[in-house]
Amino acid sequence: ARIVTLPGDGVGPEVTAAAVAVLDAVAAHYDHTFDYEQHLIGGCAIDATGEPLPADALAACKSADAVLLGAVGGPKWSDPSAPVRPEQGLLALRAALGVYANLRPLQVHPALTALSPLKDDKLRNVDVLFVRELTGGAYFGAKTRTVDTATDECKYTVVEVERVVRRAFELARGRRHKVTSVDKANVLETSRLWRSTVQRIAADYPDVKLEHQLVDSMAMLLLTQPASYDVVVTENLFGDILTDEAAALAGSLGLLPSASLGEGARGLYEPIHGSAPDIAGKGVANPVGAILSAAMLLRHSLGLEEEAGAVEAAVEHVLEHGPRSRDIGGDAGTAAIREAVVAALD
Amino acid sequence: ARIVTLPGDGVGPEVTAAAVAVLDAVAAHYDHTFDYEQHLIGGCAIDATGEPLPADALAACKSADAVLLGAVGGPKWSDPSAPVRPEQGLLALRAALGVYANLRPLQVHPALTALSPLKDDKLRNVDVLFVRELTGGAYFGAKTRTVDTATDECKYTVVEVERVVRRAFELARGRRHKVTSVDKANVLETSRLWRSTVQRIAADYPDVKLEHQLVDSMAMLLLTQPASYDVVVTENLFGDILTDEAAALAGSLGLLPSASLGEGARGLYEPIHGSAPDIAGKGVANPVGAILSAAMLLRHSLGLEEEAGAVEAAVEHVLEHGPRSRDIGGDAGTAAIREAVVAALD
Ligand SMILES: CC(C)[C@H](C(=O)O)[C@@H](O)C(=O)O
Ligand SMILES: CC(C)[C@H](C(=O)O)[C@@H](O)C(=O)O
Repeated sequence: ARIVTLPGDGVGPEVTAAAVAVLDAVAAHYDHTFDYEQHLIGGCAIDATGEPLPADALAACKSADAVLLGAVGGPKWSDPSAPVRPEQGLLALRAALGVYANLRPLQVHPALTALSPLKDDKLRNVDVLFVRELTGGAYFGAKTRTVDTATDECKYTVVEVERVVRRAFELARGRRHKVTSVDKANVLETSRLWRSTVQRIAADYPDVKLEHQLVDSMAMLLLTQPASYDVVVTENLFGDILTDEAAALAGSLGLLPSASLGEGARGLYEPIHGSAPDIAGKGVANPVGAILSAAMLLRHSLGLEEEAGAVEAAVEHVLEHGPRSRDIGGDAGTAAIREAVVAALD
Repeated sequence: ARIVTLPGDGVGPEVTAAAVAVLDAVAAHYDHTFDYEQHLIGGCAIDATGEPLPADALAACKSADAVLLGAVGGPKWSDPSAPVRPEQGLLALRAALGVYANLRPLQVHPALTALSPLKDDKLRNVDVLFVRELTGGAYFGAKTRTVDTATDECKYTVVEVERVVRRAFELARGRRHKVTSVDKANVLETSRLWRSTVQRIAADYPDVKLEHQLVDSMAMLLLTQPASYDVVVTENLFGDILTDEAAALAGSLGLLPSASLGEGARGLYEPIHGSAPDIAGKGVANPVGAILSAAMLLRHSLGLEEEAGAVEAAVEHVLEHGPRSRDIGGDAGTAAIREAVVAALD
């Protein structure tokens, strides 16, 4: 299998290297061959080439089986009005790969509930899979700017809504058969299109229970009854906000993976944490989010379900027995966590 | 002073009546005269007149000193694709009154921390004032809809941003001198206009500390470090989501008030809870959010700071010593809470 790695900025290179080490251990153990090709994205790409996503990086991603990304951005490139910005590389990559469904699983490890801002009783049985639409909405709509006015257009077509919602229903069938669709249908036209499309598609999945929530209510319900959700599907910007809110429940951003999928098997995998410039280069970043992203890569792009499960079980073991990185109350570095996960694989 | 009441739907009439009773007690105690005029809004207005905000209701609001609203909406009118909907009345009223600054204070009463989903240590010293832009953005932008496409335009002018941001800075001067501005400037053009306007205005307030947060990060930070925020200012839709998220911290939605202000003293006051159809008409709704909204009315529209403080102190007393309504673990009804607050006023 051909895997493109895009380590990016900040702690990106450190956590990506750890994830690759775990993939190598999987390859050795199960007798697979993974070929890696590394490319630039984000701030480091701007510095080297002037562009946040150089053409050769994009071409490599388009012909790979899977892409493993670290993080983009940092204080050096943080001016939101600069003409060229690291995030543009990420957004362009998502669009070019057509990865319209961003999967963000959330579970709260029982050994880590003390780190969560939520009370322990709220965290019991939390197991949510967010499915965020990733290539539409206000992120990619027309923008205008004059001296005294700015606009962003949020646009959705029925086709865009249908494909991501179908993915959510399919995923719910492999889980607890419940889909919660989030919109703002009492105010937004795009949300009314979203809701009516969801309603129509739901008819094809009579075995899956559907509920609709308004985004403001959902922001509250995620805190008051997080254990009642299974698959949560929503549009791009609402998904951006709600998945970060939900991520706070896990105790550390460093733990959470994501997978972005389109029509074929090819996918883009990245931890949900950012480039964490404050700890970059110190060898202390938590690689678990990146390692679990690699597990999702094995499952969704390479069809290696057993191997994915083995990586997840190894991470579980390490979270339970240690070592632990700083963000979750330990003092182990990135390399120690990586080695512990590799050791637990065997 | 002339006050228009818009009880609206569901529990709206019950909680509005309780707030009016408290205003009457204030009037008697401090020798003021408040004249009330009641009008229809929302679902009950649709049923009676076909319109969610009848012309006479709007005219009365426009010539009043203040408007006290209960809640709008309910299952009877909940189809988001219906041509006439209760929320339209509320949105039209906000726009017509020009109340561009929606103030939503959040404090977590020490006697109620057990009800919050957050751990007790996170709740200590939480005292946030959200200032949500209320008459712009995607709520009021152009919308289009065809069979297979929908769009919503989010538009902001510098003038719209400037006036609400100035209000936030002014309010911060009467508090802890800190403003957190929330946007999505790494993706949205309206957010870049928002951020550059905030930066320019901040120069007029050198005594106020300013920080910018991205809306996704803020959704997380509200849970991990809620006590570190003073005034939080943001655009309409982000404010809708973040204030509901924050409201979950208080333990019950029934406790929280809001004030919507424009250029003059006239304002629109409403509890942040909805019409709660499940408990409507049972006499058990918590009137505290409506009563505290009336306190904000006294302060912001009538300039009666002492009276406002007296109502808030009376509510504090009742929250501490009881009686308590069902939503906060007691069994007292709306009338009992109202009477307890009135008694504590003396
Ligand atoms: C970096 C940023 C553009 C991105 C987004 O908003 O999609 C990030 O917050 C994410 O959620 O992956
Ligand atoms: C009822 C609805 C239109 C309204 C809004 O979204 O503004 C409500 O959620 C609020 O926050 O006051």
